[in-house]
Amino acid sequence: MNAILRLTCRDRRGIVAAITNFIAHNNGNIVNLDQYTDPAAGQFFMRLEWDLKNFKIAPAKIEKALQKFGKISVTFSNRQKRAAVFVSRYDHCLYDLLLRQRSGELNCDIAAVISNHEDLRYVAAAFGKEFYCLPGAEKKQLALLKEKKIDLIVLARYMQILSPVFIRDYLYKIINVHHSFLPAFKGAKPYHQAYRRGVKIIGATAHFATEDLDQGPIIQQNVAQISHRDTVDDLIVKGRDLERQVLSEAVRYFLNDRLFVRGNRTIIL
Amino acid sequence: MNAILRLTCRDRRGIVAAITNFIAHNNGNIVNLDQYTDPAAGQFFMRLEWDLKNFKIAPAKIEKALQKFGKISVTFSNRQKRAAVFVSRYDHCLYDLLLRQRSGELNCDIAAVISNHEDLRYVAAAFGKEFYCLPGAEKKQLALLKEKKIDLIVLARYMQILSPVFIRDYLYKIINVHHSFLPAFKGAKPYHQAYRRGVKIIGATAHFATEDLDQGPIIQQNVAQISHRDTVDDLIVKGRDLERQVLSEAVRYFLNDRLFVRGNRTIIL
Amino acid sequence: MNAILRLTCRDRRGIVAAITNFIAHNNGNIVNLDQYTDPAAGQFFMRLEWDLKNFKIAPAKIEKALQKFGKISVTFSNRQKRAAVFVSRYDHCLYDLLLRQRSGELNCDIAAVISNHEDLRYVAAAFGKEFYCLPGAEKKQLALLKEKKIDLIVLARYMQILSPVFIRDYLYKIINVHHSFLPAFKGAKPYHQAYRRGVKIIGATAHFATEDLDQGPIIQQNVAQISHRDTVDDLIVKGRDLERQVLSEAVRYFLNDRLFVRGNRTIIL
Amino acid sequence: MNAILRLTCRDRRGIVAAITNFIAHNNGNIVNLDQYTDPAAGQFFMRLEWDLKNFKIAPAKIEKALQKFGKISVTFSNRQKRAAVFVSRYDHCLYDLLLRQRSGELNCDIAAVISNHEDLRYVAAAFGKEFYCLPGAEKKQLALLKEKKIDLIVLARYMQILSPVFIRDYLYKIINVHHSFLPAFKGAKPYHQAYRRGVKIIGATAHFATEDLDQGPIIQQNVAQISHRDTVDDLIVKGRDLERQVLSEAVRYFLNDRLFVRGNRTIIL
Repeated sequence: MNAILRLTCRDRRGIVAAITNFIAHNNGNIVNLDQYTDPAAGQFFMRLEWDLKNFKIAPAKIEKALQKFGKISVTFSNRQKRAAVFVSRYDHCLYDLLLRQRSGELNCDIAAVISNHEDLRYVAAAFGKEFYCLPGAEKKQLALLKEKKIDLIVLARYMQILSPVFIRDYLYKIINVHHSFLPAFKGAKPYHQAYRRGVKIIGATAHFATEDLDQGPIIQQNVAQISHRDTVDDLIVKGRDLERQVLSEAVRYFLNDRLFVRGNRTIIL
Repeated sequence: MNAILRLTCRDRRGIVAAITNFIAHNNGNIVNLDQYTDPAAGQFFMRLEWDLKNFKIAPAKIEKALQKFGKISVTFSNRQKRAAVFVSRYDHCLYDLLLRQRSGELNCDIAAVISNHEDLRYVAAAFGKEFYCLPGAEKKQLALLKEKKIDLIVLARYMQILSPVFIRDYLYKIINVHHSFLPAFKGAKPYHQAYRRGVKIIGATAHFATEDLDQGPIIQQNVAQISHRDTVDDLIVKGRDLERQVLSEAVRYFLNDRLFVRGNRTIIL
Repeated sequence: MNAILRLTCRDRRGIVAAITNFIAHNNGNIVNLDQYTDPAAGQFFMRLEWDLKNFKIAPAKIEKALQKFGKISVTFSNRQKRAAVFVSRYDHCLYDLLLRQRSGELNCDIAAVISNHEDLRYVAAAFGKEFYCLPGAEKKQLALLKEKKIDLIVLARYMQILSPVFIRDYLYKIINVHHSFLPAFKGAKPYHQAYRRGVKIIGATAHFATEDLDQGPIIQQNVAQISHRDTVDDLIVKGRDLERQVLSEAVRYFLNDRLFVRGNRTIIL
Repeated sequence: MNAILRLTCRDRRGIVAAITNFIAHNNGNIVNLDQYTDPAAGQFFMRLEWDLKNFKIAPAKIEKALQKFGKISVTFSNRQKRAAVFVSRYDHCLYDLLLRQRSGELNCDIAAVISNHEDLRYVAAAFGKEFYCLPGAEKKQLALLKEKKIDLIVLARYMQILSPVFIRDYLYKIINVHHSFLPAFKGAKPYHQAYRRGVKIIGATAHFATEDLDQGPIIQQNVAQISHRDTVDDLIVKGRDLERQVLSEAVRYFLNDRLFVRGNRTIIL
């Protein structure tokens, strides 16, 4: 069993030594260490993973013991995160997440599939997942999320805008996929916008949802070449592959505790 | 020696047969035929290349003979196009074009390098090309272009906006490279804009210059993955490779008579 | 309803005119024409699609009427091809094909899922497809394929080698996916081979199965960057995405009658 | 001014703490730390960069002071590495390296261009670099390399095989570019091999030269999609872009002290 520390603090001389020393003195063996210093802001970010065998501090007390170093979070490799997937009518991202979770690619418990439509109930059922149709009922949704102890919300082509209250409750815990290479083609019908502009590439973007629609910190982006022969329908088909890919990669980063947010940027360690 | 016909007309039954018949009856052997019908607009586009050996119509009379079929242009494989390259202070796209032209990759005569600065005179000289420093002198530039019988203007990171008059004179004969995946990050300092937005991909776009800055028909686009570790300077370095690539590909399409414009879109046959 | 002609013949003057004339004289409207002449071999390949409304020749008689032009095949847009998918224990390619077929991306009837193991019966069932577990029983498999009038066999990570007799019966109608960028890492366990060699890219290849294992004409290939941090298991996970992608694209080319074979190469029109 | 430590040793508890402690106790400020533990071999690799301002140990004594930790090398950011570029007749990689060096992208001193032909003397001259035509004269070449205190040898499409003695003298200091996605198409004329096999992607590979031709540890690879329309000459043109790209990236890794070799694999920190 490993512990994973995510730390953010002002950069200062000896910070790496101080933390690695602390781990070593308590008999931890470092398995992985990644750090990044934002040169402009002088901000220090670290992800540190160590083996807990023989570690002198009990898991429940580790977080407190490390607080002196800065803004921290500590997670444990044997504790699966709990995810809720929000969907509407498109099934491709939902299937992709369910298949990747089942194959072990995404290490999480998909504790609920929540929708504003009934359409995809059968998909959730085929994978033995609980499905909740709660259209226009944010309070019920929030209550369910609390009850299920949800760590991560995945908007898998969920076609409804969340309220600022909802987003603030789960800030940087909501990952959305937008079907364009943001910041191009914000808003509705990006494939139609792309077709009209005559671009030669289309893209998809996974990002944290914030109160500003399609403007949250970007986690992952990918693109595909297109040509004049591609109709809007072709763009939609090609785009589905991109959406699946960027969304699942962003979710994997989150589940592996690799994401930090600094201003409107993500740092992936 | 081959002839290349580019034809645009309303789609109609038998159009391909009529043209290929015409070529066959006059003893031409078709080497290449590409066509595209815009489904929405019912517009027909064709690029047809045929061998002129034994062709019954003299080259000088071919264009007239084909005019009945629609809006056409005819070029000949033994006639090199004449290009002018506009530059300012960045040398990477200029070097790239000169090297590709010398290696035979770009089949054209680079008849002039025109700049608003003296900086790159030595680069042109090293490749035996004429260099003209004509800052803020569009009339002189236009006179030079006429004198040199220029077919294609390549804006290879030329840092000055051309007047509407200039652009109308050479409409769809001016290829510009913009250092972003348009329509994202139009205007000045796109790499700085990209850095601030925290995107995970950067791009470059080659497009026809039109009166609307950075909004002309897109010819080619390419992107590269970046990470939070990349500074603005890193983006500039990575972007240079993209700029070179998309610009040279767009120029090659033009030189091979493969480009059509329909509204704000290019069709590449 | 459209007809699609695929034609292979010696290149000769006037061949395009002759065929397009034939279509025009019989009141067909050409919707799409792609051709390619192999410069070394002087071989001509054409894919021609035309609208049958008002076409003077009855569909059943078109093939015969066109035989004079060369080696041909004629298909019709309203006749769905019938595919059999062969699988063993890996489910990712099967799910991918079933989902793409259901969404309309792959225009075919998946008439049978055939396996040498029972494992994936439930997947076929979830999509309402017939599943046949026929391990080591090629005769039964062939009988079933005949009975079901199968046009295309897709080996979706089928872990058994087909006999030469089987392959000859369905030559250039069997598409296999191999999990490497062929010709690198032929044979067993290519991800392990790739790991040991320390490559920085992995790939997948969709190709026609021939009697020479992993050496048939290549239809589609794709690759992904990897790093020293990727274990064999990581390669397997990343490779699944590539396998899905190249296999589904190759199948789509086949279903759209776009594939020609010349020696050990495919031509995709 | 920064120091850069590259360390390889058996993985052991507290190794990161021990080293970072050592740096901190001597007043060094860590700017960058990357580490990797090979899970199979239990081997630990670290690249550590720290600011030398106020560092208590004099630069000349740092290496000795750190030797207790394992197999190490220490370099300094203010000391440019000295590179020799070996070429034959192809100019594209040479131009690319010279341009990138001049623009600051490659932080090194190109102290000599060495060739077995006179052809590219003028290119070296245009960039003010010394050119030596030393065909079939390895002893003279080696003497020159010693005299020039060369740290890195770049084989930029050098068409001659180096002797085992030469390679041993500069083991893991010679970077070669091979024009295929190795291990496919080892040996001569890989683009011709690729054409004959009918692949849909071509590639290029930068690797350390070892005594086994084209089999040394791979540093970087890249590929491009091709189609049946591409002739061997087209592959050569498209491949040049890939060769330039992978070679310059591999050289940059080397110059930034990011490369480690473990068996036949590179680790890039």
